[in-house]
Amino acid sequence: MSSTPTPRTKPAYVRPLNFRDGRIDMGHGAGGRASAQLIRELFVAAFDNEWLRQGNDQAAFAPPATAPGERVVMATDAHVVSPLFFPGGDIGSLAVHGTVNDVAMSGARPLYLAASFIIEEGFALADLKRIVESMANASRECGVPIVTGDTKVVERGKGDGVFITTTGVGVVPAGIRIDGALARPGDAVLLSGTIGEHGVAIMSTREALEFDVEISSDSAALHTLVASMLAAVPGVRVLRDPTRGGLATTLNEIASQSGVGMLIREDAIPVLPQVDAACELLGLDPLYVANEGKLVAVCAAEDAPALLAAMRAHPLGAHAVQIGEVTEDAHGFVQVETKFGGRRIADWLSGEQLPRIC
Amino acid sequence: MSSTPTPRTKPAYVRPLNFRDGRIDMGHGAGGRASAQLIRELFVAAFDNEWLRQGNDQAAFAPPATAPGERVVMATDAHVVSPLFFPGGDIGSLAVHGTVNDVAMSGARPLYLAASFIIEEGFALADLKRIVESMANASRECGVPIVTGDTKVVERGKGDGVFITTTGVGVVPAGIRIDGALARPGDAVLLSGTIGEHGVAIMSTREALEFDVEISSDSAALHTLVASMLAAVPGVRVLRDPTRGGLATTLNEIASQSGVGMLIREDAIPVLPQVDAACELLGLDPLYVANEGKLVAVCAAEDAPALLAAMRAHPLGAHAVQIGEVTEDAHGFVQVETKFGGRRIADWLSGEQLPRIC
Repeated sequence: MSSTPTPRTKPAYVRPLNFRDGRIDMGHGAGGRASAQLIRELFVAAFDNEWLRQGNDQAAFAPPATAPGERVVMATDAHVVSPLFFPGGDIGSLAVHGTVNDVAMSGARPLYLAASFIIEEGFALADLKRIVESMANASRECGVPIVTGDTKVVERGKGDGVFITTTGVGVVPAGIRIDGALARPGDAVLLSGTIGEHGVAIMSTREALEFDVEISSDSAALHTLVASMLAAVPGVRVLRDPTRGGLATTLNEIASQSGVGMLIREDAIPVLPQVDAACELLGLDPLYVANEGKLVAVCAAEDAPALLAAMRAHPLGAHAVQIGEVTEDAHGFVQVETKFGGRRIADWLSGEQLPRIC
Repeated sequence: MSSTPTPRTKPAYVRPLNFRDGRIDMGHGAGGRASAQLIRELFVAAFDNEWLRQGNDQAAFAPPATAPGERVVMATDAHVVSPLFFPGGDIGSLAVHGTVNDVAMSGARPLYLAASFIIEEGFALADLKRIVESMANASRECGVPIVTGDTKVVERGKGDGVFITTTGVGVVPAGIRIDGALARPGDAVLLSGTIGEHGVAIMSTREALEFDVEISSDSAALHTLVASMLAAVPGVRVLRDPTRGGLATTLNEIASQSGVGMLIREDAIPVLPQVDAACELLGLDPLYVANEGKLVAVCAAEDAPALLAAMRAHPLGAHAVQIGEVTEDAHGFVQVETKFGGRRIADWLSGEQLPRIC
């Protein structure tokens, strides 16, 4: 399988792609001249970097880890969000942020991205261009280049516009050891900001709901926030972004991996009033709604003040709070102290309330 | 976007997945309990390795490159082959071989794979299990573990069974420099074996054609062949696997990247008689039919005998031949000397004769 390289010389008799009215056809995925043209005039032009210009079926680069004790990480994510465009982002920016964040949640500095596209026959080239340019912008803003890629085309009715899988590689600095299995009873559980915006932005676009205040996805790359946090508290034990399944599912994942419980105070969890209202209307619990620019951190109780201060000093952590503690619990339950003083168990998301949220 | 980690403890009240009659539903992609169960009972069970067992949203490993002069490579490929099962393989084994080969064509030793799945609602769990186990086998046979992954589900009619994107990371040994841009006039062009089997196997399955002799895909991982070749001739200049677009398109890619021409002898190119017959029946030119277990090598003319000998000593290169030479040609034309002594230009594949071949 080859990501067709870009011919250096553009044959004079090929018309440029029509990015106004043109559409993807099966030939754009056949690996011949049309594929090469799409790659040259769209992907290489937008992502423009030395690795893609090499035009090989893979990108070669200097070893990412060079100092003793450093480790390399790799993360991959398929993006199938529907609709493709939503307030605060699109599938292109989301595909960059999502994988940059999965890499960053290990404490790593993200270095390189690969991107593979599965496009439905008949998809408008104008929409594809908008998505690819949004990816290119997100990648430049993050400082993480898209160094290699692949494009496939499937027949009309066998896909849904475009699906994008991104894979990221990064380096964990020496001395940093972050893992979902490291939470200990007594640790503090911190949250970087308000929850629920991404899922509500997608669901309200899908349901064509309009609110007085538009709700935008929180989609953002968190790697610089992570770097600030680790500079302040290198001993952070767990980092995870509460995406699909929401905050409740992420806390359950950590509890399960670490063999601990959690006690969370519901009134400590920040939710924007318009998100709260939309959730009520849509029948959603904000605890289970996806976020794309937030993180959960677990650290020793004595490190919490310094970590919170570092988070609040960063724009993406301005509303960071401690939401609870890690408890000793053989059942791995995540308990929520409600606003009325009672306690309930916040289980894993079950069922399919929010399909294709990312 | 998180590849939901595997809970360490399996709740007692969850029934195991029904791999006989069960089907994928939207809940399997929602990131909650059902996603976690699918990952635990299928993916982690089949791919079984220390990195997946970490259960984080990314895999961490020791730095792949440690000696001076080594480089790291990364390659990604979306697999959308239809049908999913074909003689000689399936989308699972193909997804491993395809990316292992893209990494190996840089001269690299492939080290780690990431896999992302986009599954259509209603897809049979039995078929998914067969595919995942085939991937697991291919990965074990290659010695390249699948260390991280992701699963998404799309509604019925928005996908086509399953699409798999694999991304590979590998290390190029010091002193090896392989690039599509390095072919020089006078160089030898070698081919590792017969062409056309993969494309013909797919097309005849699709057209429900039956032949006296079944034609199997040549799908195979070429990294050990590459290692043998580089041990014999470290100065190999170009390696590329002629997949989508076939041998003719691959030669055009190299000619275009290197700013050279090529002269190929048609009667030197090995084609199995049954592939020749099937191509005639299907109206295909073997030169444009996809291969998934063959490679093209370009080396200095004086290195050709040693390189051919190394290829022939390996099971996947037993039928290796020199098929032509690199020429000086400002137009970058690939010329074919026909069996009748004439010459024709073998252009890039154009149009869409073989959609979804990989």
